[in-house]
Amino acid sequence: VSSVPDVAVLGASGYAGALSAQLLWRHPSFELVAVTSRSDAGRRLDELHPRYRVPLVLEELDLDRHGQVDAAIVAYPHGAASATVKALREQRVRVVDLSADFRLRDIEVYERHYGGHAAPELLDDAVYGLTELHRAEVAGADIVANPGCFPTAAVLALAPLARAGLIADVVVDAKTGVSGAGRQATEITHFVSADENVNAYGLPVHRHVAEMDQELAALGSPVAATFVPHLVPLDQGELVSCYVTPARETSAEEVRALFGEAYADEPFVELAERPPGVREVRDTNLCRLSTHADPRTGKVMAFAAIDNLWKGTASQAVQNLNLMFGRPEGEGIT
Amino acid sequence: VSSVPDVAVLGASGYAGALSAQLLWRHPSFELVAVTSRSDAGRRLDELHPRYRVPLVLEELDLDRHGQVDAAIVAYPHGAASATVKALREQRVRVVDLSADFRLRDIEVYERHYGGHAAPELLDDAVYGLTELHRAEVAGADIVANPGCFPTAAVLALAPLARAGLIADVVVDAKTGVSGAGRQATEITHFVSADENVNAYGLPVHRHVAEMDQELAALGSPVAATFVPHLVPLDQGELVSCYVTPARETSAEEVRALFGEAYADEPFVELAERPPGVREVRDTNLCRLSTHADPRTGKVMAFAAIDNLWKGTASQAVQNLNLMFGRPEGEGIT
Amino acid sequence: VSSVPDVAVLGASGYAGALSAQLLWRHPSFELVAVTSRSDAGRRLDELHPRYRVPLVLEELDLDRHGQVDAAIVAYPHGAASATVKALREQRVRVVDLSADFRLRDIEVYERHYGGHAAPELLDDAVYGLTELHRAEVAGADIVANPGCFPTAAVLALAPLARAGLIADVVVDAKTGVSGAGRQATEITHFVSADENVNAYGLPVHRHVAEMDQELAALGSPVAATFVPHLVPLDQGELVSCYVTPARETSAEEVRALFGEAYADEPFVELAERPPGVREVRDTNLCRLSTHADPRTGKVMAFAAIDNLWKGTASQAVQNLNLMFGRPEGEGIT
Amino acid sequence: VSSVPDVAVLGASGYAGALSAQLLWRHPSFELVAVTSRSDAGRRLDELHPRYRVPLVLEELDLDRHGQVDAAIVAYPHGAASATVKALREQRVRVVDLSADFRLRDIEVYERHYGGHAAPELLDDAVYGLTELHRAEVAGADIVANPGCFPTAAVLALAPLARAGLIADVVVDAKTGVSGAGRQATEITHFVSADENVNAYGLPVHRHVAEMDQELAALGSPVAATFVPHLVPLDQGELVSCYVTPARETSAEEVRALFGEAYADEPFVELAERPPGVREVRDTNLCRLSTHADPRTGKVMAFAAIDNLWKGTASQAVQNLNLMFGRPEGEGIT
Repeated sequence: VSSVPDVAVLGASGYAGALSAQLLWRHPSFELVAVTSRSDAGRRLDELHPRYRVPLVLEELDLDRHGQVDAAIVAYPHGAASATVKALREQRVRVVDLSADFRLRDIEVYERHYGGHAAPELLDDAVYGLTELHRAEVAGADIVANPGCFPTAAVLALAPLARAGLIADVVVDAKTGVSGAGRQATEITHFVSADENVNAYGLPVHRHVAEMDQELAALGSPVAATFVPHLVPLDQGELVSCYVTPARETSAEEVRALFGEAYADEPFVELAERPPGVREVRDTNLCRLSTHADPRTGKVMAFAAIDNLWKGTASQAVQNLNLMFGRPEGEGIT
Repeated sequence: VSSVPDVAVLGASGYAGALSAQLLWRHPSFELVAVTSRSDAGRRLDELHPRYRVPLVLEELDLDRHGQVDAAIVAYPHGAASATVKALREQRVRVVDLSADFRLRDIEVYERHYGGHAAPELLDDAVYGLTELHRAEVAGADIVANPGCFPTAAVLALAPLARAGLIADVVVDAKTGVSGAGRQATEITHFVSADENVNAYGLPVHRHVAEMDQELAALGSPVAATFVPHLVPLDQGELVSCYVTPARETSAEEVRALFGEAYADEPFVELAERPPGVREVRDTNLCRLSTHADPRTGKVMAFAAIDNLWKGTASQAVQNLNLMFGRPEGEGIT
Repeated sequence: VSSVPDVAVLGASGYAGALSAQLLWRHPSFELVAVTSRSDAGRRLDELHPRYRVPLVLEELDLDRHGQVDAAIVAYPHGAASATVKALREQRVRVVDLSADFRLRDIEVYERHYGGHAAPELLDDAVYGLTELHRAEVAGADIVANPGCFPTAAVLALAPLARAGLIADVVVDAKTGVSGAGRQATEITHFVSADENVNAYGLPVHRHVAEMDQELAALGSPVAATFVPHLVPLDQGELVSCYVTPARETSAEEVRALFGEAYADEPFVELAERPPGVREVRDTNLCRLSTHADPRTGKVMAFAAIDNLWKGTASQAVQNLNLMFGRPEGEGIT
Repeated sequence: VSSVPDVAVLGASGYAGALSAQLLWRHPSFELVAVTSRSDAGRRLDELHPRYRVPLVLEELDLDRHGQVDAAIVAYPHGAASATVKALREQRVRVVDLSADFRLRDIEVYERHYGGHAAPELLDDAVYGLTELHRAEVAGADIVANPGCFPTAAVLALAPLARAGLIADVVVDAKTGVSGAGRQATEITHFVSADENVNAYGLPVHRHVAEMDQELAALGSPVAATFVPHLVPLDQGELVSCYVTPARETSAEEVRALFGEAYADEPFVELAERPPGVREVRDTNLCRLSTHADPRTGKVMAFAAIDNLWKGTASQAVQNLNLMFGRPEGEGIT
C-alpha cells in the first residue's frame, strides 16, 4: 500500500490549474497521476505551458478513472465546478475546489452573484480554505473551497482588525496582474489593451465582495465592504489596499500590535514596515503586509501583496491539501 | 512689435519641463526663446529627450537675459521655485509655476508639508491653475500655481459632488506611471524595481492631499481626504479612484446628472460610461471620468484618468498660459 | 465643387485601419466620409479604439455607396484585398492598399508566399509605396501598394548600400511590438504570453523577405536576404538590425557619407550617431537610422527604428495619399 | 569536521551576487557564511533584495576573516576582481569569479577590451566555466571564470556547429532584459528610458565577443563573430539569435542531428522545435535552443534562450561550484 496519495488536477489548462499541476508534480508527498482539460485534451501540459515542466498529456475527464484518485484540485469556472465536485465526492475523492461554488455559506448570496448551484446539499461539508483562519477545519475537510485571490489578500489584511471589532467601514481597492483575468484571449487580455494601461473593472459590485463580507462578519466585524479591482500591466501579482474607518479611535501602535499577535507564528504572512510591492512575493505562497494610520483622518490602512496565482490560488490549494493529508503545511510550496 | 509673446521654460531637463518646451516649441502663438537647466546646461534638449524635438541648447539660468521674456514656465522642485518666481515677477515676467510653492493659500499648511518659502508675500497674487475650476482668475493672473497631477485628477473627479455638498468622507486611491517619479535615476525608478511591481508610497500622508482638501473645501465640502498614491509599471498615465461616503442618500442617476451639468461644455473633460483606462488619454490634455454608485453600501465612486505629464502637468500649464495671453484654451495642446 | 477629396477606410477596426482613419479624420485636406468593418459593423470607432477620436460608426462595405469616394485606404488581410481593390478601381477610386496583394511585381513570388490573387492584371498599375524611394511614381499612381512594416525599415536602412552595389549578403534581425501581430486576441497576443518574453517567429522564411529582395535588387544589389522577426514586449515600435557583408572593403566614413547623401533632404529619415531606440519615433512618421562598421569583421551594420503602425503602415499610407492628391507630403502626419 | 564547505559571496549587493547568495543560502551542501558589499555594508541583504530571502547583513570585505572560507563567488566589476581573487587564492580559497578577469586565455586580448590585470600569472590556473563544455576541468579547478551571459547562450547555440567545422561566418544578435545592465540606477536603466523601447548598444564591438571567438576557435571554428546586444523592456531573460554562414552545404536535418548528439545527455540544455521564448526559462538554469535552416540562403540559424541572471550568471556559478566540490551538478539550482 502506497503512503503517497494519488492526485489529479481537473481543468489543468488554465493558469491556476497548470500551476497546481506543476506544484503537485514536484511535490514529495503527492503523486500527480492525471491532468484533465476539455479544451486542450491531447496536448502535453508542458507544451501548453512551457514554464511549467509537467510532461503529462491532458485528458478528457473520465470519472470512472479519475474518480479513483485520493484527492483532486478542481480548477473549473464558477458554476461549472459543483456538479463535478459532487460526482467526485460520491467516489470519496477529497477535493480542493478553486471556484466560488463552495465558498459562500448562504446559498441565496451565492445564487445572486453566480446563478444556479448543482449541489447545495454539500455546502455544509465545505470549509473555506483561507488557511491561516481555518487551519483546523481544513485538516479535517473533504471539500475545501479555496478562496478567491482578492478575498485571500483582503481578509488577511483585515482579519486582526475585524477580530478586534475595529472595522466600522472599509474600502478595498485592489490591483491585479493580467493573469488574474485568465488564459482566455480577449480584447481585455490582449497585450496592446493592457500594456501602459490601468483601469477599474467589475463595477459597481464585484462578486468577490461576498466572501469578504462573510469572513469579516464571522471574525466579528459585520460590514458591507466596498471593493473595486483594477487591472495593471503586469503578469502575476496582486496588491490590496484597505482603507478602514475604525469603530473607535486607535493608533498605529495598537494596530501594529494586533497584527503582530495575529501573525507572529504564521509562516506565510510577513509584516513589513514599508508598503509591500508585489515583486517581493512573486512565485511564493507569501502574503506581505504593512499597516499604517493617518492621524489627520483617523483612518487605518493595510496593504497586502500576494501572487494571485500562488497564495491567491494554486499554492494555497496545495497548502490546504497538505493539511488535509497530514503533511507539513509548507511542503512543496516553499 | 511682435504680437507673439516670448516664453522660456526654466528647468527643462526634467520630464515636465521638457514636455512644456515641446508644446511651446510647436505652439502657433508663443515663441520659445530659451530653455534652462542647471544639471544639463550645454546639452541640446532633443539629445536629452529625443522624443521631444526641441533643437535648443539648455542654458544656465541668467535672470538678466531670461528675465526679458513675457512669460515663463518654471519646472523646479518644490521649495526651489519660489525665489526664482519672485525674481521673475520683479522683472514683470508672467509665470506658470509647476511646483507646489504657490498652490496652498495657507502658508502654515505649506510649511508643514514643504518647509520654508522664499516669497510668501506673493501667495495672494497666485491663482490655483486647475483650469476648469478657476478659468476666469487664471486669465488675469500673473502667477499661476499649476496643480499637482494627483489633485488635478482627484478634484476634477470630485468637484461636482463637493459643490453639491455631498462629500462626507472620501478615500482617493491613485495609480501613477513611473514618469510621475521624475527623471532622477534611483532605486525606485530602476526598470527592474518598477517592472512587474505595484506598491503604495508616501504613507501615511502624501503632501498632495493638502491641495485636495483646500479645493474641496472651497467648493463646499470641507473634508480631510484620505489619499494614497501607488506606483504601477507604466510610463505615462494616472488613474485616480475616489470612494465617497455621501453626506446624504443619493443615486447613480443624481450623480450622473451632477457631472453632466458640471462638464457639459468642458472641452477637456470626458464623461465615460465604463471606467476609463489611462491608455485612452495618453499624450492628451483630457481627463476622462466615470461615476458609479454601489447600492449595497451607498458609496459613490468616481474614476478619473489623465496623462500625468500632460493634463497632470505640462499641457495644463500651456492651457493656463493660453488663457493668460488671451489665446484659445486648447491651442497647441489638441 | 469641393476641392477636398472624400476618402474612406475599409477595414477600419484593426490597428492599422483605425489609425489611418484617425489621421484622415483630423487631416486638413481630406474628408473622411466612411469607415467600414465586417466584424464590428455598427460600433462606433471611438468606442472600439478610445485612443483614436473618430466618432464615425463602422459600416458594412457597400460598394455602391463607398465606391463614390475619391480615394480609399484598404486595410484588409493579405489575399482578401485584391478583389475589393479591383472593384474600387472599376469605380475609379484611387487606392492605397495596406496588404501585400500589390507589393510584389512577380506574381509567382506572390503566390508562393500568399496563395491566389484576384486581380493580377492590376499589378502593373500598382506602385510600391515606400515613399522615399518611389516618390514620383506614387504621385501618379492609382494603386499604391503600401509596404510591409519590416521592409519599410529594412529597405530604408539598406537602400544607400544597395544603390552603391555594396551588399554581398545581409542578415536582417527585426524586433517588433505586439501591435504588429494585429488586433486578434490569440495565445500569442495575450498579455501573459508576450510580457517578459522575447522570441523569434515566422521561421524559417518570413514572407516579408520577398519585398526586401525585390527592392534591394531594383536598387542594384540582387541578394537573398536572411530575415527573422522577433516579438518584444512593447506596444508600438519596430527596430530592424541589418548586418551587411559588403561586396568590397568599405569604412564607417564611406558608409556615413552614402547615407548622408541619400537622406539629406528627406523630412522623415533621421540619421543618428547612436543606435536609435523605438521610443524616439513613437507616434511619428519618422525612420531613425544609425550606421556602424566593425573593423574586426568588415561587416557594415545599420539600425532603423520606426513606429510599425505609423511609418510602418498608416502614416506612410497618408504620406502616399498626400502625394497622390498633390498635397504636401507631411500634411496631417507631422 | 564538517563536510559542508563554508562559502562567501563577495559583492553581493548587485543582482548577480544577490542571486548567488540566495541560491547558496538554500543549498543543501554549502553553508553561506558571509556576504560582502562595499556600497551597502551594514544593510541586510533581504532588505536590499526582498525577493531573495537571505537574512544576512552585508559586511565590508575582511580578508582575514573572509579568507577562511572554502570557496567564494566573486561578483565584482571587470578589472576589480583579479586582485581579490589573487588574495583569496593565497589563502587557498577556491573561487568562481563572475567577472571577465579570468575568462580570456590571451592577456593581450583581455587588456585590449578591459585594461590592466592584477594577476595575469593566475590565468593558467583558471578554467572557463561554461559547464557543458568544460565539465571535467571545472571539477578540478581552483579558479573558475564564469562566462559572460551572452557567450553562455551564444556558445551553447553554436558549439555543435563549431565542433563540426561548420561556421564560416556568424552574426550573433542578442536581446537582453534590463537586469543585464546591472543594479546601478542610470539614465539607461530608468524605467521611462527602457519601457516601450528597444535599442542596440555596445557598438561597434562589444567586448563579450572575445569570449565567443576564443571558445568557437577552441571548438574548431576559428571565426571573428559579429555580435550586437540589444536592450529590451523586460526584467530577466536573454535571447541570442545566431545566423551562421556554413562552411559547406548542410541541411536542417544534419543540424538537428548535430545538436541532438551534442546535448542528448545535458540536463540543462533543451532542444525545442519552435523558437524558444525567454519566459520559458525564467528563474531556471536552462538553456532552450532551436535550430533552423533557410533553404533560400543556405544560412543556418540557432536561437538560444536563457535567464541572464541564472544560467547567464548565478546559477551557472553554483553549477560550477557543485562540480568543484563533488556535488551533483544540479543541486540547489533545479
